[in-house]
Amino acid sequence: MEEVRMEKLYEGKAKIIYPSSEAGMVRVYFKDDATAFNGQKRAQIAGKGAVNNQIASALFGYLEEHGIPTHFVRQLSEREMLVRQVQIVPLEVIVRNRTAGTFARRYGVEEGRVLPKPLLEFSYKNDALGDPLIYPEAALALGLLSEAELERIRALALQINTLLKDYFAQRNLELVDFKLEFGRLADGRLVLADEISPDTMRLWEMGSGEKMDKDRFRRDLGGVEEAYQEVLRRVQGL
Amino acid sequence: MEEVRMEKLYEGKAKIIYPSSEAGMVRVYFKDDATAFNGQKRAQIAGKGAVNNQIASALFGYLEEHGIPTHFVRQLSEREMLVRQVQIVPLEVIVRNRTAGTFARRYGVEEGRVLPKPLLEFSYKNDALGDPLIYPEAALALGLLSEAELERIRALALQINTLLKDYFAQRNLELVDFKLEFGRLADGRLVLADEISPDTMRLWEMGSGEKMDKDRFRRDLGGVEEAYQEVLRRVQGL
Ligand SMILES: Nc1ncnc2c1ncn2[C@@H]1O[C@H](COP(=O)(O)OP(=O)(O)O)[C@@H](O)[C@H]1O
Ligand SMILES: Nc1ncnc2c1ncn2[C@@H]1O[C@H](COP(=O)(O)OP(=O)(O)O)[C@@H](O)[C@H]1O
Ligand SMILES: [Mg+2]
Ligand SMILES: [Mg+2]
Repeated sequence: MEEVRMEKLYEGKAKIIYPSSEAGMVRVYFKDDATAFNGQKRAQIAGKGAVNNQIASALFGYLEEHGIPTHFVRQLSEREMLVRQVQIVPLEVIVRNRTAGTFARRYGVEEGRVLPKPLLEFSYKNDALGDPLIYPEAALALGLLSEAELERIRALALQINTLLKDYFAQRNLELVDFKLEFGRLADGRLVLADEISPDTMRLWEMGSGEKMDKDRFRRDLGGVEEAYQEVLRRVQGL
Repeated sequence: MEEVRMEKLYEGKAKIIYPSSEAGMVRVYFKDDATAFNGQKRAQIAGKGAVNNQIASALFGYLEEHGIPTHFVRQLSEREMLVRQVQIVPLEVIVRNRTAGTFARRYGVEEGRVLPKPLLEFSYKNDALGDPLIYPEAALALGLLSEAELERIRALALQINTLLKDYFAQRNLELVDFKLEFGRLADGRLVLADEISPDTMRLWEMGSGEKMDKDRFRRDLGGVEEAYQEVLRRVQGL
């Protein structure tokens, strides 16, 4: 059941957070807006909001079934999901299985090199500073999270990687890398929050290596809507 | 005894490496050139080369006496030292005791905050890429060094920090942060290489907090030559 529109709590680049009538919950509304390169490139991708909401809902459901605590409660409508409100840990948690994107550019290496083991990186979630890479020890020193939270996030991120790699492999897609955000519930417990979608993952078609994610937008490869739709079809198709 | 000038092996921003007649050795010549912000700001600091050669020679001697293996053999002349030739590990090893410089700017925090424990950071030594921060796991994945070398470098860097903090505290200077480079001898053994000088450390006068290092040049604080000279006096004075 769709709830009535209320005043926004927060509007970000890809989503809007609305209050909910249910205690401790908020509604996440998925927009069609796409941004890249720290907001320098902007456009609309027709239908993206609806597609990402459905993909994220399915992925959160899958992860919950496999023991990962998430903020997800249920899908409310085509573009809205109900989630538990959290205090976001101000870190982007990046898991890399192959070199790509920022990593490849930053170190001058080619894309697609398989990493000997999944690489976990953190960046400080701060648009004004450009989300800079940060060492876990520095995040602790700056008080962004506690040591126990860091260890929990590390363990969850690696489990999520294993689960999602497997999930997408069954759909002929390779999970190259992705970004997660974690949040604290009122009682302090950590849960996976935000979204998981082709906006926040790199998915390569197995075999051809064709990009099935936001890189089609970032790099003007065309077929952006179609790629997002195709990922949704495979998520629903199994 | 000063050796005859020969063709350069390498000219960097602050030093020139010349061949030596002694097997496995090279001569390091310290220039007066100063650069900052990845080479964007350039100038000469009169007498810096001579001062840094003497400071670095004294510090390498002190570290060797305390069990740290270094490339240093002996001072050859006012501006030259004899060192063992190494293959440089392409990482800048940064040790931070307080927030300052790049770290403070990168994360939008004030300078001078004491870190709960010394923070070790690595940056990939690559001028074209701007010496980007790199996780140790990423450096391993890119084959920049081995796991054994990484552990050895970590241990040595922390020991060097303890030794240098103590050395400078006795001279009323606080060691805020510094950059090290390590190299491999022909047999693969790691030694501390490059230089340690006010070009590569932050030293703050205890009490007043006055900057006694390259920040006087970076930030146009004046008294650059005098600060370098004063550090040398204290190094020699005890
Ligand atoms: N369960 C939640 N409770 C509160 N905030 C959340 C929750 N899940 C995600 N958020 C935050 O809501 C915002 C989502 O909007 P988005 O458009 O992705 O923002 P941004 O432009 O900051 O990336 C993000 O700041 C995200 O951290
Ligand atoms: N013992 C050594 N053997 C070989 N090379 C060295 C040794 N010690 C330092 N080097 C290298 O010599 C160069 C010193 O010159 P410098 O002006 O500091 O160069 P840069 O501009 O690259 O910082 C650096 O590249 C450094 O890594
Ligand atoms: Mg976001
Ligand atoms: Mg140098």
